[in-house]
Amino acid sequence: MSNETLETPGAQAAEDLIRFAAGLRFDALPPEVSLQGRRCLLNALGVALGACGDPAAEIALEVAREQGGEPQSRVLGYGAALPTRGTALVDGVLSHVLDYDDTHMATILHPSPPILSAVLPVGEWLDVSLPELITAFVAGVEVASRVSLVLFPDHYDRGWHITGTAGVVGAAAAAGRLLGLDAGQMRHALSLAATQAAGHREQFGSMAKSLHVGKAASDGILSALLARRGYTSAHGGLEGRRGMFHVMTEGATPADLSEGLGKRWEIFENGLKPYACGIVTHSTIDAMRALRSSIDGNAADEVREIQLFVHPLVFELTNKTDPRTGVDGKFSIRFCAALGLIEDAAGAGQFTDEMVKRPDIRRVMEAVRATADPRLEVYQSRAVLTTRDGRTLEQKVEAARGIPQNPLSREDIEDKFRSLAEPVLGAERAKSVIQALEEMEGIRTRDLVGRCVAPDPRL
Amino acid sequence: MSNETLETPGAQAAEDLIRFAAGLRFDALPPEVSLQGRRCLLNALGVALGACGDPAAEIALEVAREQGGEPQSRVLGYGAALPTRGTALVDGVLSHVLDYDDTHMATILHPSPPILSAVLPVGEWLDVSLPELITAFVAGVEVASRVSLVLFPDHYDRGWHITGTAGVVGAAAAAGRLLGLDAGQMRHALSLAATQAAGHREQFGSMAKSLHVGKAASDGILSALLARRGYTSAHGGLEGRRGMFHVMTEGATPADLSEGLGKRWEIFENGLKPYACGIVTHSTIDAMRALRSSIDGNAADEVREIQLFVHPLVFELTNKTDPRTGVDGKFSIRFCAALGLIEDAAGAGQFTDEMVKRPDIRRVMEAVRATADPRLEVYQSRAVLTTRDGRTLEQKVEAARGIPQNPLSREDIEDKFRSLAEPVLGAERAKSVIQALEEMEGIRTRDLVGRCVAPDPRL
Repeated sequence: MSNETLETPGAQAAEDLIRFAAGLRFDALPPEVSLQGRRCLLNALGVALGACGDPAAEIALEVAREQGGEPQSRVLGYGAALPTRGTALVDGVLSHVLDYDDTHMATILHPSPPILSAVLPVGEWLDVSLPELITAFVAGVEVASRVSLVLFPDHYDRGWHITGTAGVVGAAAAAGRLLGLDAGQMRHALSLAATQAAGHREQFGSMAKSLHVGKAASDGILSALLARRGYTSAHGGLEGRRGMFHVMTEGATPADLSEGLGKRWEIFENGLKPYACGIVTHSTIDAMRALRSSIDGNAADEVREIQLFVHPLVFELTNKTDPRTGVDGKFSIRFCAALGLIEDAAGAGQFTDEMVKRPDIRRVMEAVRATADPRLEVYQSRAVLTTRDGRTLEQKVEAARGIPQNPLSREDIEDKFRSLAEPVLGAERAKSVIQALEEMEGIRTRDLVGRCVAPDPRL
Repeated sequence: MSNETLETPGAQAAEDLIRFAAGLRFDALPPEVSLQGRRCLLNALGVALGACGDPAAEIALEVAREQGGEPQSRVLGYGAALPTRGTALVDGVLSHVLDYDDTHMATILHPSPPILSAVLPVGEWLDVSLPELITAFVAGVEVASRVSLVLFPDHYDRGWHITGTAGVVGAAAAAGRLLGLDAGQMRHALSLAATQAAGHREQFGSMAKSLHVGKAASDGILSALLARRGYTSAHGGLEGRRGMFHVMTEGATPADLSEGLGKRWEIFENGLKPYACGIVTHSTIDAMRALRSSIDGNAADEVREIQLFVHPLVFELTNKTDPRTGVDGKFSIRFCAALGLIEDAAGAGQFTDEMVKRPDIRRVMEAVRATADPRLEVYQSRAVLTTRDGRTLEQKVEAARGIPQNPLSREDIEDKFRSLAEPVLGAERAKSVIQALEEMEGIRTRDLVGRCVAPDPRL
C-alpha cells in the first residue's frame, strides 16, 4: 500500500512540502520574508477589522455564539471569546467579506484571510510569541500558494474558489505548525484538510464567498487537532489517484509543491489590494484615476464614451452590467471604472448600495464599453476615453498598483490599516498593532489579539 | 440576475425539491414511508452504538470536547453533552466507521449516517416529537438521494465520496426542516451546504472516510443555522453554471431532483446492510455462506481454488490483496469471501486486525481469484469453488441480502440492532429504543436520545 503510494507522481514533492511545513523555524526565515509576512498580516488584520458590523460577519458570530464553547480565543474587533474553530469561522468571514485582502497573482488565491484566521485563534489559545506566529503564518501561505499552483488553472476555470480549497490545506499547515505536529502528523493534517476542500465560484457576490474562508480556517484547525491526537487518513490525500489533485483538477502539476522550497518564497508573489474588490478590476481603477486629472469639470458630464480593454477572465468575472448592491458592484467592471473616475477611490466606503444607484455614477457606467483582449494580463488594462467635446484620452496600465511588480509602500499599507482599523479600535490601539508587528520582541499573540479588540464592547 | 438563473436547466427542479423539503409534514408521509424511515433510523442507531470505543470516534470526541460548547445535545452511547455541531461530528464518525450502515443502490450513497447525525442533535436541542424527527429524517434522505442521482456516476467515478458530498445537502435539508425554515431560507441552506460539499475516495480504508460523514452532518447543521438567521448565498448553488452540479460532475441530470417527488420515495431504494463492509462485497459473502454448507470438514483445508466473478466497480473498490487491518479487510474481496466461508458471518466482530492475520483465513484468501465481469450488477456475484478432492461447486447470487429486492426482515433488523446496541446499552435499554421507534406516540427526541446513552458513564 505505502509502496504503491510512494510511486505516485508527486509523492516526493508532497513529502518535501510536509517536512517543510512541520520543520519551518523563525531563524530560517530570511528577514525580508518575515517582513513580508508581517505586512500581509497587518493588511489582513485591517481588512478584517474594517468589516466589523458587516451583516455576514454578524450572522456568523451569532451562530458561533449560539454553539458556544471554551473561551480559547477572541474574535477580531468584537472580542467574543470562543473555541478556536468558532473564532476562525468568524475571523474568516471578517477577513474576506470586503474583498479588500490580497492576491497570489499566479493563481488568484487570497492567501492571508484563511491563514490569518487559523493562526490567530490557535496562536492566542497557545499564546505563542510573535516570531512563532509569523513562522506559522508564512508556512501556511507557502503551503496554500503551492497547492494553488498545482491546481491552477483548470481547477479555477471549472468553478472552484481556490481560496477555499487551497486555503484549508494552508490553514491546516499553519495550525499544525503552531501545535508542533511532527512530519507524520502533519501529513495526516494536510490529507484530512485536502479531503475537506470546498467552495464554488457560483457563490461570488454572495455572503457564501466569505463563508468559504471561515470554513477553510475552521476546518484546517480541525484537521490539525485531529491529527495531533492520532486521527489518520490516506497517505496520498493530496497527490494520490483519488486524492485532492486528481479529483479536483485536470493537469495537476504536483512538482509545484516543492520546487525551490525555502529558496523561492511564494509570499513575495502576493499583492496587497489598494481597492476593496477583486484584483482583476484594479488596473482599470488605476487607469480611470489617471485619466481623471485630464478632465476639467464634473467627469460625469464630460464623458461621452469609455472603451475598456481587459483580459478575458477579467471580462468573465466582472460582467455584472446592472449591479444592485455594493457587493454586486465589486463584480462590475463598469461600476469600478466609474468609481475611479468620479470618486478617485475604491475603498470599503465606496462599495455601498447607495453608491451603485447614484445618478452620476450611473451616467459614467452607461458610457463604458468593455472588451476582452487576450493580449493583456489580468493585472493590466487599457482605457480609451472620449469626451463630449471630442477629445480622446488613452491610458494603459502595465501593472496594477499593489501587485508584486508595483507594490504598496510601507506607508500605503499602514495608511490602509489605519483607515480600516481606527473606526473600530481608535487611533491609539490601531497604532499599537502596527508597533507590535514592527517590534515583535517580547510580544505574544494574546497581547496582539487584545490590541485588535474594540474598546467599546457594544460593537 | 434572478431571471438569468431561472432559465438555467434544473432551476425549476431545484425549486421543487426545496419546497418539498421545507413543506414536508408527517401526515403527508405514506405509512410505509414512515415505517421504512424508522427502520433506517433504528439500523443507523445500532451501527453507531456498535462503534462506541472505536479509535476514530474516540479521537473525534476528544477534539469536540476540547472545543466544548453549549450542552444542546448528547453524543450517542457516550452521552457527552455538546453543541449540535459537535455532537453531529462525533455521531457521524460513529455511524459510518463500521461500514455497516445502508446503501442507496443506484448511487452507492449511504444516506442514513449523515442524516441521522444531523437530525438527532438538532431534534434533541429543539426536543421535537418523534413524528417530526422522522419527517425531517425522510426529507433529508430524499434530498441526499436525489442530489446523488443528479451527480452519479461521473462524480463517483472521478473520486468523490458521494456520502460526504450529497450528504451535506441532505443534512442541511433535514436540519432546516426541524428548524422550520421557509422555502427561501431552505434555498439558502441547501446552497450553503452545496458549496461545502467535500470528501475524496482516496480516503477509503482510513479514519478520514467516516470524518466525511461527521463533517457532512455538522456542516449541514451550520448551513441551516446560518440560513435561519439570514445568511445568504447564490440562488443557483446547486444547479447554476458554477454551482455544485456543474463543478463536481460531468453530465449532471438535475431533473432527478424532482421527478416523481412525493410519489416515488428514494428511501425504498435504500438497503440495510447485513454485513459490516461495503455493499459491493455482500453478494460474495452470501455466495460463500451458501457454498459452506456443501463442504465437509474444515473449509480452509478442503478448498483448492475459488473463482469469483464480480462487477468491475466491485473489483476496483475491493482489490486490496494483502489487508493489514480489519478496516483494510473491508476493501478486500478475498478477505470478505474467506469470512463468509469460514466464519459464516461478517459483522463488526469479524473485521478485526487479528482476523486478517489468522492462518485459516489467509489460506482461503490465497485460493481466491477474482475477475471483473461487466454482465453482473454491483449487488450480484458468481463463485466457483473447487475442492481438494476435485469437486466443483457453483453459486450465483442474483440479489445480495439486504438490498431492496431482497430486504432484511423486521426481525433481521431488530436482531442486528440488538447485537450492536446491547453491549453498550444493555438489553433493557436496547429494547426500549426499538419500542420507542415502534410506538412514537408521546415520545420526544430528548427521550429517544436518552435511551441511546450507555448507563455506564465510564464508557
